[in-house]
Amino acid sequence: MRRTHEERVLLVLREQGALSRNQIARAIGLSRTTLSEITGSLLQRGAIVVIDTDAADREGSGRPAERLALDPASGQFMGVDFGHRRVHVVVADASHEIVASGSDRYEDRIDWPTRLEVAFGLLERLSAQFGVHYGALQGVGIGIPGPYSGKPGVRGFPSHRAAADGFHEASVDEAFGERLGAPVIVDNNTRLAALAEATFGGKAIEDLLYVRLSDGVGGGLVVGGRLVSGSAGLAGELGHVTVRQDGSPCRCGKHGCLETIASAPAILAACRAAGLAVDTLDDLATAVARSHPVADRVLRDASTALGQVLAAVGMALNPAEIVIGGEITRIAPVLVQQAAATVRYGLFPGAASPGVRTAYLSDDDGALGALAAVFHSSPLLAGYPATPAPARLRPTATQGVADGRAH
Amino acid sequence: MRRTHEERVLLVLREQGALSRNQIARAIGLSRTTLSEITGSLLQRGAIVVIDTDAADREGSGRPAERLALDPASGQFMGVDFGHRRVHVVVADASHEIVASGSDRYEDRIDWPTRLEVAFGLLERLSAQFGVHYGALQGVGIGIPGPYSGKPGVRGFPSHRAAADGFHEASVDEAFGERLGAPVIVDNNTRLAALAEATFGGKAIEDLLYVRLSDGVGGGLVVGGRLVSGSAGLAGELGHVTVRQDGSPCRCGKHGCLETIASAPAILAACRAAGLAVDTLDDLATAVARSHPVADRVLRDASTALGQVLAAVGMALNPAEIVIGGEITRIAPVLVQQAAATVRYGLFPGAASPGVRTAYLSDDDGALGALAAVFHSSPLLAGYPATPAPARLRPTATQGVADGRAH
Repeated sequence: MRRTHEERVLLVLREQGALSRNQIARAIGLSRTTLSEITGSLLQRGAIVVIDTDAADREGSGRPAERLALDPASGQFMGVDFGHRRVHVVVADASHEIVASGSDRYEDRIDWPTRLEVAFGLLERLSAQFGVHYGALQGVGIGIPGPYSGKPGVRGFPSHRAAADGFHEASVDEAFGERLGAPVIVDNNTRLAALAEATFGGKAIEDLLYVRLSDGVGGGLVVGGRLVSGSAGLAGELGHVTVRQDGSPCRCGKHGCLETIASAPAILAACRAAGLAVDTLDDLATAVARSHPVADRVLRDASTALGQVLAAVGMALNPAEIVIGGEITRIAPVLVQQAAATVRYGLFPGAASPGVRTAYLSDDDGALGALAAVFHSSPLLAGYPATPAPARLRPTATQGVADGRAH
Repeated sequence: MRRTHEERVLLVLREQGALSRNQIARAIGLSRTTLSEITGSLLQRGAIVVIDTDAADREGSGRPAERLALDPASGQFMGVDFGHRRVHVVVADASHEIVASGSDRYEDRIDWPTRLEVAFGLLERLSAQFGVHYGALQGVGIGIPGPYSGKPGVRGFPSHRAAADGFHEASVDEAFGERLGAPVIVDNNTRLAALAEATFGGKAIEDLLYVRLSDGVGGGLVVGGRLVSGSAGLAGELGHVTVRQDGSPCRCGKHGCLETIASAPAILAACRAAGLAVDTLDDLATAVARSHPVADRVLRDASTALGQVLAAVGMALNPAEIVIGGEITRIAPVLVQQAAATVRYGLFPGAASPGVRTAYLSDDDGALGALAAVFHSSPLLAGYPATPAPARLRPTATQGVADGRAH
């Protein structure tokens, strides 16, 4: 109820510009007393500001009334991407312009309460650095590694008790919802990248198949304009489609998964096994630039396996676009070219093949994917249950230097 | 506009039972003159009937007024399945009970105007035999062989001119819409079978993968409770996923498609190639009953290939159920059992595997699948543009003996 009133205040200010408290109260049919409580909370949280008084407009002799307006620096939408080793945050205003962006690192595989602390510290830092406030947030999209079911609550996390911060049995969505008083959408970060690819590329793509070649191989499906979760939150796990029945063991427990052939570490390992000394993707880039035959063969093998999986799933889903992401695709574009050729060969002769392309967004752009989810799902947010906004997030001091890129 | 008035008349009769014309006019706020035109049309089309007069209820001495009611035998929903050699029709009443059902044959690969004529003849026969009328049809679902895009109009048909019946440039949906004056949904019949499996089995399944082993191998996907068409109407073509790169040529132009291994003709051919004389599925049934080792090996090969495709697509979609249909699965249940084992092996160890089961509905139940589409899509029908109902479909005489099965 409280949140509904807040939203109506923000809406009338967005539509009508600066207004006095009396004007707002009349516009949305609230008592002056109730309205003052709401504007007090919004002012305290930085969602709105006092910009002037109505002294110039008014006749008569009463005390001039303050006029309130939306703070142009108020973040309306937030995207958060939790990777294995860092969290990245982007904040957009009501016109979807990015107004703040930054990241912070944490140790690999550290527990979730610590990741959340790092993330909340980053939010305070961004607030101070970019002068953005989070009082009027309309939604927060959060990408996490690992499966997510799309159902309320976060699956796949062990429960933790955190001593310092006072929250326990934490789930990411509850922690953010409580901290920011805004609706939260959580999903697997690779899946959100698929949604971003479907919505960021100019016109929206209704049916898209996305795969990312990274430390592992993950993917995401957009079908009929909607992100697919699957019955247990496991949809899109293209990396664990079996490609070779007698293949190498995979971390998932099976053998011959696509990930054992087409992930970045698998490609490097296959090169080394064939006598090409490559430890990093930079080494691979050098070998590719020299057209080294081992690198060429390994990459073609990997992309053929990738193309076979994409063709099989593409035959089932008939997507308009197939998108291949991951840093390695920029180093070795042959991965995308060869996979595209295998896909074309594997689909119906004569029928229009889907476009196969390199991802627009890089691995570091997960937060933009999370933001895309918020933009995309905004009608869903209407059903969000009201959460008291404790306004604990106040800018304190610059605690580090954000990377400052504003897309 | 006219159709809206008709719907309101039908709705008030459905909700309030028998009413006089004056009562109906008052209930929906129409003039007595306008209402009489509408009830006249509905009476003529058999959607409503005169059941008695209000003589018993009324005081005073005026002429008793007729009371009108929905015809209890009035068909409310229709499912139509066009196969290669026959059309099957089911009609359900407002409570979803099947009130009429029958089929008629036509020559294989005959043109569409002729198929439509056979279908319309069947409708007249069913009307006479079961006493059903089509004046109050709420929707018609039509399954057709071949790809369908889900977009308005029917893809994949050449245009025909029909001399006898006066329609030309016919498309199936337009022909039925014009004939019956009701909204029409057309989709591929295998895909509609997938929807039926997802909705007929007690509780609705949100995510389901369906494959049918028949003369060919087809399939359909239900994702998030919705039937998937794909970007060009080609979603669900599991029969043309490549299983063996060096396999036999397929009618689609590729090699080694699942259909070349797991369709009923492919299984019979593989048995014959190994020296087992089987010409028909009955022959195969005999061999299976004798546990003939050739039949056993061929069926295991086919079901392993099937399971590999289902596992790959299942990994991408994470369905709750995988359903295998086709008459051959009833003859050789090992097909489903072995495919289920291959699917379990191919998905994540430890994660809950989808249930793999034989289809509830047989190949002859396509019209029930089409009916499921109408029930499922009823909110969509609200947007159906009004079509003048020419009421050309009047019961004439019994033109044959319908098969009469009422499910």
